[in-house]
Amino acid sequence: MNLTDYKTLFLGYLQEKTAVKEPVNLYEPVSYILKIGGKRLRPLLVLIAAEAFGKESAVALDAALSVEVFHNFTLLHDDIMDQAPIRRGQETVHEKWNINTGILSGDVMLINSYQYIESYEPVVFKQLMQLIGKTAVEVCEGQQYDMDFETRSDVSIPEYLKMIEYKTSVLVGAALQMGAIVAGASQSAQQKIYDFGIGLGIAFQLQDDYLDTFGDVATFGKQIGGDILENKKTWLYLKTLEVASTKDATQLLEIYSTSENHVDKVTTVITMFKQYQIEQLIKEQIKQYSNKALSLLENLEIEEVPKNILRELVISLEKRNQ
Amino acid sequence: MNLTDYKTLFLGYLQEKTAVKEPVNLYEPVSYILKIGGKRLRPLLVLIAAEAFGKESAVALDAALSVEVFHNFTLLHDDIMDQAPIRRGQETVHEKWNINTGILSGDVMLINSYQYIESYEPVVFKQLMQLIGKTAVEVCEGQQYDMDFETRSDVSIPEYLKMIEYKTSVLVGAALQMGAIVAGASQSAQQKIYDFGIGLGIAFQLQDDYLDTFGDVATFGKQIGGDILENKKTWLYLKTLEVASTKDATQLLEIYSTSENHVDKVTTVITMFKQYQIEQLIKEQIKQYSNKALSLLENLEIEEVPKNILRELVISLEKRNQ
Repeated sequence: MNLTDYKTLFLGYLQEKTAVKEPVNLYEPVSYILKIGGKRLRPLLVLIAAEAFGKESAVALDAALSVEVFHNFTLLHDDIMDQAPIRRGQETVHEKWNINTGILSGDVMLINSYQYIESYEPVVFKQLMQLIGKTAVEVCEGQQYDMDFETRSDVSIPEYLKMIEYKTSVLVGAALQMGAIVAGASQSAQQKIYDFGIGLGIAFQLQDDYLDTFGDVATFGKQIGGDILENKKTWLYLKTLEVASTKDATQLLEIYSTSENHVDKVTTVITMFKQYQIEQLIKEQIKQYSNKALSLLENLEIEEVPKNILRELVISLEKRNQ
Repeated sequence: MNLTDYKTLFLGYLQEKTAVKEPVNLYEPVSYILKIGGKRLRPLLVLIAAEAFGKESAVALDAALSVEVFHNFTLLHDDIMDQAPIRRGQETVHEKWNINTGILSGDVMLINSYQYIESYEPVVFKQLMQLIGKTAVEVCEGQQYDMDFETRSDVSIPEYLKMIEYKTSVLVGAALQMGAIVAGASQSAQQKIYDFGIGLGIAFQLQDDYLDTFGDVATFGKQIGGDILENKKTWLYLKTLEVASTKDATQLLEIYSTSENHVDKVTTVITMFKQYQIEQLIKEQIKQYSNKALSLLENLEIEEVPKNILRELVISLEKRNQ
């Protein structure tokens, strides 16, 4: 199977399992956000990992569904917290309905994401649930750190990397490990594919930071410089503070200290980033994480076809422009 | 053990297991809402049920903790949805912090409530998780029906009873069944004690409706007539619509159709309730549910001491004035 086959398989299952039922005001927003789309990266990783360890991907469909519904629960609640009006070109749930609907429909998605796992026998079920529980707590902690960073001026790069690991990567790692658990992989193989996912997830998030500032508006599909306009303390910003002269660092801190945006704010900040070769530095950082992921992958004794797909994912990530 | 012993045991465990950790902005509100207090009815029922089926209550402590943290998660998110400023005489979480904190801390409580169950071996773990999952979905659906009813003028008494069963009683039933599962009770005994809890929960909620309108302000601790001022479609209101003359029903519908409250609104509505003997009718309805619960209880072959405590709980419920 290739990536498109996995996606077709998953989307069919998703649609079958998430039909709207009573009370419709609770379940319509669930169906809505799940239909908006996205790359479906996490559920596909569950299916690929199951095949990598020698099981048919179909047995991992419920685990894949669980991960995707959990992921969309976090998007739904995060969009409320960020007051985001748009998600993937569509109105967000709290915008289309209201905040109460967003809260309650998100809650039921979190609960449902656990229930999809109930099709597995007790020992596998418990292993999956423990992984989901630990991961879910870390995702919440990551979101909290992200919110805490908004009002802190002393965030370090290791703290930032930990935050994106929790907020993004642990679910990528967990998705792969869930596929491995369903396929009966050993503890040590589970750990390796999880670690591969952590590297992949961090590289992916740093590439997002990169594209938000240095991407091409035509392919990226979002406004360039959005993170700068929102004073987001991304890797680019934190690295600049680390390497810039005191004068430039002070200026950058000052630019980020107010929510009133100058017309030339984005240009000024990007110019400073370029002056300190931040574009190259983040590319090297991304390369480090993807190389680490690739080396973990090469050490895994898994089926060749899914291994190739995972390898391609890492390689294509660095070329990703949207 | 008596009720006070169970409560002391539980509160010690609760405090031990819910210490604040990093990130504090996530976990402080959790600790705060768990300390506000309340009757702790649900966790005590878990412990009592475990002893009723012959196990020491200590083995049910994690299940009890799970139920109490889950219950408080629902209170936290419901308070946001209801824009409630006060809970048990203290500021609500979203009031003391903000809505985002309320959402995220509630989310982590829901996740934690599942994690506390991880101490049980896989087969018991899965039974508990399936019960919690089903119950949690019903609680969300109950909350949705409750919100839907606010804008509907054709709510029937059976619909109202189903709503309070989902919103309140299923967790009371589940608490008892969780104690039974931990103690290794048979499927049929589990079902009976669950059904006992459903009856107890509905009687309890109807008594709340009764006290809100006919209680004594000195003992009830809340403003009398709060439900009337908020146009809540309680059993009292729905029954009156059912039995009143067309003229009176029309008047009642009209009073409830506006959020602008007349100074004598509470008095007018209570006078109408009294005219139609609604006070006696709800007392009879409560009696029906508690009698049903008592008869289910008598048919259960369980230990005498915990059985007595459960019997006393039902009997004291009808005399409850706070």
